[in-house]
Amino acid sequence: MPVQEGAGAAGAAIRTRRVQATRAAAYDVMLADDLAGSRAEALARLVEGRRVPLVSTPTVGRLHARALYRDLLARGVQAGMMELAGGEVEKTLDAVARVCERAMAQELDREALLVGVGGGVCTDVVTMAASWIRRGIGHVRVPTTLLGQVDASIGIKGGVNFAGKKNYLGCFHPPRAVLVDPCFLRTLPAPQVRYGLAEIVKVGVAWDAPLFELVEGAAHAFGPGGDPAAVRETVWRAIVRLLDELEGNLYEDRGYRRVADFGHTFSPMLESAAGFAVHHGDAVAVDMALSAVLAAEIGMLDRAECTRIVRLLRQLGLPVTHPLLTPERCVHALRETALHRGGSVNLVVPVAVGRAAFIASAGDVDPRALARALALLAATGAPAGAG
Amino acid sequence: MPVQEGAGAAGAAIRTRRVQATRAAAYDVMLADDLAGSRAEALARLVEGRRVPLVSTPTVGRLHARALYRDLLARGVQAGMMELAGGEVEKTLDAVARVCERAMAQELDREALLVGVGGGVCTDVVTMAASWIRRGIGHVRVPTTLLGQVDASIGIKGGVNFAGKKNYLGCFHPPRAVLVDPCFLRTLPAPQVRYGLAEIVKVGVAWDAPLFELVEGAAHAFGPGGDPAAVRETVWRAIVRLLDELEGNLYEDRGYRRVADFGHTFSPMLESAAGFAVHHGDAVAVDMALSAVLAAEIGMLDRAECTRIVRLLRQLGLPVTHPLLTPERCVHALRETALHRGGSVNLVVPVAVGRAAFIASAGDVDPRALARALALLAATGAPAGAG
Repeated sequence: MPVQEGAGAAGAAIRTRRVQATRAAAYDVMLADDLAGSRAEALARLVEGRRVPLVSTPTVGRLHARALYRDLLARGVQAGMMELAGGEVEKTLDAVARVCERAMAQELDREALLVGVGGGVCTDVVTMAASWIRRGIGHVRVPTTLLGQVDASIGIKGGVNFAGKKNYLGCFHPPRAVLVDPCFLRTLPAPQVRYGLAEIVKVGVAWDAPLFELVEGAAHAFGPGGDPAAVRETVWRAIVRLLDELEGNLYEDRGYRRVADFGHTFSPMLESAAGFAVHHGDAVAVDMALSAVLAAEIGMLDRAECTRIVRLLRQLGLPVTHPLLTPERCVHALRETALHRGGSVNLVVPVAVGRAAFIASAGDVDPRALARALALLAATGAPAGAG
Repeated sequence: MPVQEGAGAAGAAIRTRRVQATRAAAYDVMLADDLAGSRAEALARLVEGRRVPLVSTPTVGRLHARALYRDLLARGVQAGMMELAGGEVEKTLDAVARVCERAMAQELDREALLVGVGGGVCTDVVTMAASWIRRGIGHVRVPTTLLGQVDASIGIKGGVNFAGKKNYLGCFHPPRAVLVDPCFLRTLPAPQVRYGLAEIVKVGVAWDAPLFELVEGAAHAFGPGGDPAAVRETVWRAIVRLLDELEGNLYEDRGYRRVADFGHTFSPMLESAAGFAVHHGDAVAVDMALSAVLAAEIGMLDRAECTRIVRLLRQLGLPVTHPLLTPERCVHALRETALHRGGSVNLVVPVAVGRAAFIASAGDVDPRALARALALLAATGAPAGAG
């Protein structure tokens, strides 16, 4: 599906990437720009004539969502507003039920649209609530974190953690639209920038070398006094390239070999083992580093390429090792992942920057190589030879 | 889709009705017969090679599900077994979460199948749990009540009550198969038979006069010492005729004018107002009687036809009036229903036995006619002139 420049669904001149979720349903991921005045206008057009409860968190509410809410009211939209507690530990069935309760109090009809304004936890909870209410109402996502904008909010999944397991319960429920505005990132704390960069690096390593190079060159653009234009280009490329990859298998019913799972095999275990005190972005970085060094150890990846990957992660301030990542837990994670991927682990490992391969069976992951890779990363924070 | 007689998907000679849920996914509703030995065999074939936690209730467990579980184990199936408390008040998010918790303990992969063995509450909860686990695993429904067999279990919906509202939260999640065996009905308490007959009468009144006549002639067949062959024929016709009607709009995204909503406008309010102490089947009967008498009052339905409808309901032991059904609540129910049907109430009223029409707007329901209809039913339990 081609990317459009020009008048998007919202009428303003903003870039859009249409995603064909099913034969009958498509949604637009739109790149708005608050500085150009297109954010609130785009949202108002999207929700015109509907009841729209906004769901946010206290911090995002204070910084952005309450202003957006007032703006919608001023434009005559029947908006409501509620705030959830933030953070991964709040990604629960209870949080979803609270959103449903508030939605019910607002007497939503089936045409109503929930609008999630926040990070990945907020939009995941909103997606799940929308999928439940009256057996499914529409929703719009306005991701305010880098991780939300380039990853969590642009696909069709919602999910919550359950009984200590990351995303054990969830849904496939396409949004009506996703409104991405990199202007939100100016208020984002540094760690949150790092978490999002991890997912961008994922795309770069696994199937888009030019994006990897873009991040190598533009890492500082995301920091204070950075370059907004470089940020917009990097964010948009990451979005488009991820959607290119996801679109053929959005419902994950066409096979379990997905390069987009790179960095997502050991990381759910690390997050769970840490009681979600390790952030998803950091956990993905650790997983990518481990997968890369493992690939180098078993001869699938050139050592220099491996070094380049681990070095970029470290440059971005991302961790590449964690004490909870023991060989035993890693072996257990391989088994757990196989349960979720149709019986085969399909571990994604890089074979070069921009290209990945699969190790199909958990049994094919040499436990000694895995232990060596863990030890190397723990000892030096970088693979042997990287200095 | 034609009904098949002969070798079904389970290999045994059982009747099946294939339902095309989406372009890519279909499921079979199968008429098994335990007396002919086809029930357990059919289920074992359906779940072959999968992990299958059976979910049931204590009563159904004692009567049927534990035997089915042992039978599956004996056939080498990796089955598990759990029991939920039964009853409409148990149709909650909590019950769904409990099923998920047990499923997680059994380390289900994405190929696992939940199997719901019980009434409509059990299969609704199981459907919702299956839709959540790992973003959707498969499930099989084995309805053991008449209402489950002819209505609640054969479509693609699951749902729970929430904050006092009937089915406010739910999902569309097609089953892999539905195994209907009228032999289960031999252990069914008399009220449960009545509840199921209400849904059969619904189909008869709203779009299938021959089914209505079948019930007029075979009402006693469902009682003790009744005629199993007549029961099978009536159940199967009710199933096939309901699926004929539902199949074109299973996801309810092709309009809100559905004759299958007959009896389902005032009934959710009655169930909620009674704290679910009035059973769904009884509430539907009261709703159908009210809709029929209202139609007669406003000249849309011949009085003799109206009498025939109300008389059959009474013959079947079904209520046609309830003290909680006040004019105020009815008006509120019309408004609530409109929220769920795209803004228009689309009240279904019979214009003859076997044919229905819609009253599009809540404003078109004359409140005086509604009050007269309520008074008539309350005073006599039958419309004026029915004696």
